[in-house]
Amino acid sequence: MAGSREAFRVAVANTLERRLFYVPSFKIYGGVAGLYDYGPPGCAVKANVLAFWRQHFVLEEGMLEVDCPCVTPEVVLKASGHVDKFTDLMVKDEKTGSCYRADHLLKDFCKDKLERDTALSPEKIEELNHILAVLDDLSAEQLGAKIKEYGIVAPDTKNVLSDPYPFNLMFQTSIGPSGLSAGYMRPETAQGIFVNFKDLYYYNGNKLPFAAAQIGQAFRNEISPRQGLLRVREFTLAEIEHFVDPEDKSHPKFSDVSDLEFLMFPREEQLTGKSATKLKLAGAVSEGTVNNETLGYFIGRVYLFLTQLGIDKDRLRFRQHLPNEMAHYAADCWDAEIECSYGWIECVGIADRSAYDLRAHSDKSGVALEAHEKFAEPREVEKLVVTPSKKELGLAFKGNQKMVLEALEAMGETEALDMKAALESKGEVEFKVCTLGKDVTIKKNMVSINLEKKKEHQRKFTPSVIEPSFGIGRIIYCLFEHCFYQRTGKTDDEQLNVFGFPPLVAPIKCTVFPLVKIEKFDVVAKKISKALTTAGISHIIDITGNSIGKRYARTDEIGVPLAITVDSTTSVTVRDRDSKDQIRVEVDEVASVVKEVTDGQSTWADIMWRYPAHTASAADEEEAPET
Amino acid sequence: MAGSREAFRVAVANTLERRLFYVPSFKIYGGVAGLYDYGPPGCAVKANVLAFWRQHFVLEEGMLEVDCPCVTPEVVLKASGHVDKFTDLMVKDEKTGSCYRADHLLKDFCKDKLERDTALSPEKIEELNHILAVLDDLSAEQLGAKIKEYGIVAPDTKNVLSDPYPFNLMFQTSIGPSGLSAGYMRPETAQGIFVNFKDLYYYNGNKLPFAAAQIGQAFRNEISPRQGLLRVREFTLAEIEHFVDPEDKSHPKFSDVSDLEFLMFPREEQLTGKSATKLKLAGAVSEGTVNNETLGYFIGRVYLFLTQLGIDKDRLRFRQHLPNEMAHYAADCWDAEIECSYGWIECVGIADRSAYDLRAHSDKSGVALEAHEKFAEPREVEKLVVTPSKKELGLAFKGNQKMVLEALEAMGETEALDMKAALESKGEVEFKVCTLGKDVTIKKNMVSINLEKKKEHQRKFTPSVIEPSFGIGRIIYCLFEHCFYQRTGKTDDEQLNVFGFPPLVAPIKCTVFPLVKIEKFDVVAKKISKALTTAGISHIIDITGNSIGKRYARTDEIGVPLAITVDSTTSVTVRDRDSKDQIRVEVDEVASVVKEVTDGQSTWADIMWRYPAHTASAADEEEAPET
Repeated sequence: MAGSREAFRVAVANTLERRLFYVPSFKIYGGVAGLYDYGPPGCAVKANVLAFWRQHFVLEEGMLEVDCPCVTPEVVLKASGHVDKFTDLMVKDEKTGSCYRADHLLKDFCKDKLERDTALSPEKIEELNHILAVLDDLSAEQLGAKIKEYGIVAPDTKNVLSDPYPFNLMFQTSIGPSGLSAGYMRPETAQGIFVNFKDLYYYNGNKLPFAAAQIGQAFRNEISPRQGLLRVREFTLAEIEHFVDPEDKSHPKFSDVSDLEFLMFPREEQLTGKSATKLKLAGAVSEGTVNNETLGYFIGRVYLFLTQLGIDKDRLRFRQHLPNEMAHYAADCWDAEIECSYGWIECVGIADRSAYDLRAHSDKSGVALEAHEKFAEPREVEKLVVTPSKKELGLAFKGNQKMVLEALEAMGETEALDMKAALESKGEVEFKVCTLGKDVTIKKNMVSINLEKKKEHQRKFTPSVIEPSFGIGRIIYCLFEHCFYQRTGKTDDEQLNVFGFPPLVAPIKCTVFPLVKIEKFDVVAKKISKALTTAGISHIIDITGNSIGKRYARTDEIGVPLAITVDSTTSVTVRDRDSKDQIRVEVDEVASVVKEVTDGQSTWADIMWRYPAHTASAADEEEAPET
Repeated sequence: MAGSREAFRVAVANTLERRLFYVPSFKIYGGVAGLYDYGPPGCAVKANVLAFWRQHFVLEEGMLEVDCPCVTPEVVLKASGHVDKFTDLMVKDEKTGSCYRADHLLKDFCKDKLERDTALSPEKIEELNHILAVLDDLSAEQLGAKIKEYGIVAPDTKNVLSDPYPFNLMFQTSIGPSGLSAGYMRPETAQGIFVNFKDLYYYNGNKLPFAAAQIGQAFRNEISPRQGLLRVREFTLAEIEHFVDPEDKSHPKFSDVSDLEFLMFPREEQLTGKSATKLKLAGAVSEGTVNNETLGYFIGRVYLFLTQLGIDKDRLRFRQHLPNEMAHYAADCWDAEIECSYGWIECVGIADRSAYDLRAHSDKSGVALEAHEKFAEPREVEKLVVTPSKKELGLAFKGNQKMVLEALEAMGETEALDMKAALESKGEVEFKVCTLGKDVTIKKNMVSINLEKKKEHQRKFTPSVIEPSFGIGRIIYCLFEHCFYQRTGKTDDEQLNVFGFPPLVAPIKCTVFPLVKIEKFDVVAKKISKALTTAGISHIIDITGNSIGKRYARTDEIGVPLAITVDSTTSVTVRDRDSKDQIRVEVDEVASVVKEVTDGQSTWADIMWRYPAHTASAADEEEAPET
C-alpha cells in the first residue's frame, strides 16, 4: 500500500517536472528549499483556478475584493499576534548549526520506531502513539525532555541537539532607508482586510453582512520545508473575511447548499475513534454540529468549488478542529482536507474567528472597528450607571482621587453589580485600583450605582468574522494527483500518462494538428487557430512531423481535453482525451463546438451524438511521446 | 496651466480615494509611505487590465507564462548586478538621521529657483537647466559638490546634509532559520525567467524565437516615495522576455502592426530639441530608427494594448532612450510614456537587452544558457585551434604547468591571433596568467596556433532578449486620469464626476436599479441579476431608496458603463453612462444585450438603433450622490 502510493507519487511528480508544471526555483544555482516555479502548464492551471475562484466567490457573492501589499509594518503583525506567537519550535545541531523542527524530529522518531521495531512492548506502543496524538500540544520543555529521553540526535550528523526554542516564521525586512522601521512579508493576506474594515463597511453602505476577499502571496520562513508543493516558503492564498452580526449568523442563501451531502468529520467522531461520515449540510447545521448557517453555507460553497475543479468527492472531507487545535477565541473551525499520497492535507480552513481580529486592531490602533444597527424605533434599555462622588473620594484619597475615580468609572457591568451588592450588605468593599497598584476601601457614600432606563437609537458592536482561507498551491497539487492516471499504449508495457483535468482547469483547452505537413492543411489549421483565439480559447498548433498518436500522447500528458486533427479542408476530427472517441465536425463550426465543451455548457457526451463518429485508424493509436 | 493641472489631479484623487479605488495601506496605523491598497473598484480594474494583458500578449502570441517566487537568493541578484548596482544616491540629515534622495533635492532646488527667483542671470538659468538635463548622469561626488555649492539643507529641519552615498533599493531578508542565507524581495520579475531559460527552451522544442511572460509583485525600497501610485515600494509588474537569434531579429507578424502610426520620440529629435512626431512603424523600422523588427513589433503591440485599455493616443508617446540612459549592453530601448498631471510618465519599457542577462547567469552558475541552430547541411568553417605542448610547458613551468596550459586554452580569438603574430615575428611573448597572478614568457615551441578547417553541424549562441516590461500600477493611474471627466448636474454649480472607462476595464459592467421598492420589481431585478451572473457579467443591484438620478451619479463615479432600471415587469430601460441615452429592452433579452456591449462585440452606437428610445423623465436627471 505505502509502496504503491510512493510509486504513484513518483509517477505524478516525474510527469509534472518533465512537462514543467512546476520546477524547483533557481535550479541552475542549486535551488532553494521550499521555493518552486510554476512553468507554463502549471501557471495556466493556477490562473484558471484563481479565475474560477473569483467567479465562484467574488462575483457570485458580490464580495469586495481588495489587493494589499505583502510588505507589512511591524505594528500590524504585533496587533495580530504574529510577531509574538507565529513560531515553530526549533532545535539546532550544536556543532554544525543546522536547524530542525523539534516536533518533526520527534514525530519521525516515533513513526520510525513503531514501523520498524517489532520488539516494542504494548506499553511502549501506546506511549509512542500517545505522543503522535498530542504532538501539537507539547511545550518546548516537554518536547525537549522527550528528545533527551529518546536520545534523538541530528539526523544528518548524529550530533547532540540544543533545547527547543521558538523561531518566528516570518521573513523580516526593514522598510525605508533609515533601517529603523521593522517590517515583515505578510504570513497571510487577512490582516490587509481587517485594517480596512472601516472603509469597506462604509463602502458597503454601512450594512452587514458583507464579505471582503483577497488573492495574493504569503510568506512563511519554514524551518525545514518538505513534501514538495505542500509546505513551501512562499505561496498564494485566497482569503475571504465575511463580517456578520454576532447575534445573527443566519445566511439568506443557505438553502442553496443545504441539500448537499458529503464527508464530514465532526469533533465527536474524531474523539471517539470513528471515521468521517456522509452528512447532509442541513442536518449538520440544525443539529449544531456546524456552529451556524453562515459557516455551513461556506462549507457548502467550498465543497462545490473543489469538486467542480476536479477534486474527487470521495477523497475530500471536512474535518472539525478539536478543542485543543482551535484558537481560544474561535467559535468553530472546519478544514477542507483532501487525501493525496501524503495523506489527508488541509487545503482550506473555514473558521468562525468571532470578533478577535477586529478587536485586536481596534485596541492597538485606537480606531473603532465596529458596526451599528439602527433601531426602527428607539428602544428602552436598562443600563447600570456608576456615579462616583468626587467630594467623598477627594476627602478619602486626596492626591489619588483621580485614579480611584477613573477605576470606578471603568468597571464592567458584573463588577459594578457585585460592588453594589457588597455596599448594600456590608457598607464597604475592597477595590483594586490598577493604576495605584493596590486595593483601596470604597464606602457606600463614595459612589452610587443604579439601574437607569435609557432610550437607545442604535446598537454598536464588533462584527464576527467567518474566514474561509484557501491554500491555492495545495489545492493545485491535490488536483494534479486526483486527475492523474495511466493507460496502456500501443504495447502492453508502455504506460501513458494522462492528466484528466476538467476543461475548466485544463492549461490548454485544445490542440490543432495538421495530419501531414502540406500547405492546404496548414491554411485550415491557421484558420481554426484564429477562430479559437477570437473565442478566447487557449490552444496550440503542433506542426511537428510526429505521428498523430505521439502528438495525442504528448498533449494527454498536459491534460488537453480536446484535439482537432486537420485531415481534410472541409471537415476535421475532434478527439476527446479521456474516451479517445472521435467525431467529424465542419471546419467553420469547430471553434464553437470546442467552446461549448470547454466553457462547460455541454459535456463531450452531450455533443458527440450530434456529429458523425470518426473511426480511428491504427495510426491514431497513442504511443509514448519522445519528450 | 499648472494650477488647473493641480486642480484636476485633486479632483481625480478625491474621487479615487472616496470611492476606494485605492487608499494608503495600513491607514489606521498612520500608513506607510509608498504602500497602497486597491479597494474593490481599483482591484477590479487591475484584474481586468491583467486579464486583458494575458489575452493580448500571452494567449495571442502563445507565450510561455511562468510564476516564480518573490523571495530570491542573493546569488541570483549578484549575477544580475542588482546587489552591486541597484542603488540610489542618498543624503542624511546629520542630526535627525532622516534620509533623502540626493538627486531629488538638487532637482527640487533647481526647479524652485527657476520658478521663483526672477533675478537670475541668463548664465545662472542656463546652469540650472543644464543640471536638470544631466541630473541622472551625476556621480556621488558631483551631486555632493552641487549640494554644498548651493547650500542645500534638509527640507524638514534645515540641518546640514551628509555627503551622498549609495543605498541599495532592495528589501533584504534572510532565508531559512540559520540566518546565514541572504535573500532579497525581487526588484523585477525578469530574473525568474532568465534562470529558467534552459527548461523553457526545451519546453518550446529547442526552437527560437519564443517568449516567456510573468505577472507578479516586485519590490523597491524607495528612499522617498512620492507621486501617489507612480513611485511606490511594492508594485505589480508584467514582463515579457522574447528570446531571439541575434542574427535574425525579424518578426513573422510585423506586418500586422507595420501600418500603425503614432507619436514617437527618437533620440535624434530629443537631442536636437524637437518634439515627438507621428511616425509609421514600418518606416521607423526600415529606416533604422527602431533597431529591429521584433522590437518594432512589440512597440506596435504595446500601442494597441494601451489604447484599447482606454489610454488617450494623443497623450501616449514612445520615447527612445538617449545613449547615456541605456545600459552599455542594450542594443536599443524605447519607453511608452503616458502624459498625466505629473508630466510624461514611463509606463512600459521595451528594451533589446542583447545577450547580457543570459550570459551573466551562465557565467555565475556555470550552466550553459544557449541555443543552437542545426544546419541542414554541415558547414565548413575556419576555426582557430590552440594546441599547447604539454612537454615544453612542463619543462618551462614545472608545477605551474597546468595553470599556464588552461590559460592558453581559455584565450579568446583576438588574443590568440595576437599571440600567433607575436610568436611568428619575435619568437616569444609575455602572457598574463590570472590564476598565477603574474606574466610568464611563452615561446614559439610551447604552443601552436593554427586556423583549421572544420565541419560544423550546428551553431551555438546566446540568444538576445527583447524585454517589454509593464508597470501595471502606473498604467492604471494614467488610465484613471485619462478616463476621468466632470459634467454639470441638476444645478449649474454641481459638478458630477465620471470615469469613462471602456467596458473592458470597467470595475463593474452594469447596475440593476428597481425604480421603486415594490416586490414585483425586486423579482424582475433578481431575475436579471441571475442572468447577468450566468453570463459572467459583474454587476450590482442597488435597492437603496435614492432617486434614480442619484443612483446614476453614484455609479458614473466608479465608471459603470450601463445601468438597467426596472420600471416594469416586461421591459426595462438601459442607460449608457457617457451619452446618457436610454433604450427599452425586453427583460429576457437584457442580459445578452449588456453582454454584447461589455464584451466589446458591439458598441452602444451599434445597438441603440435596434431598440426603442426611452425618454428620460426629470427624475432621471443626475444629481450629486450623498456620500
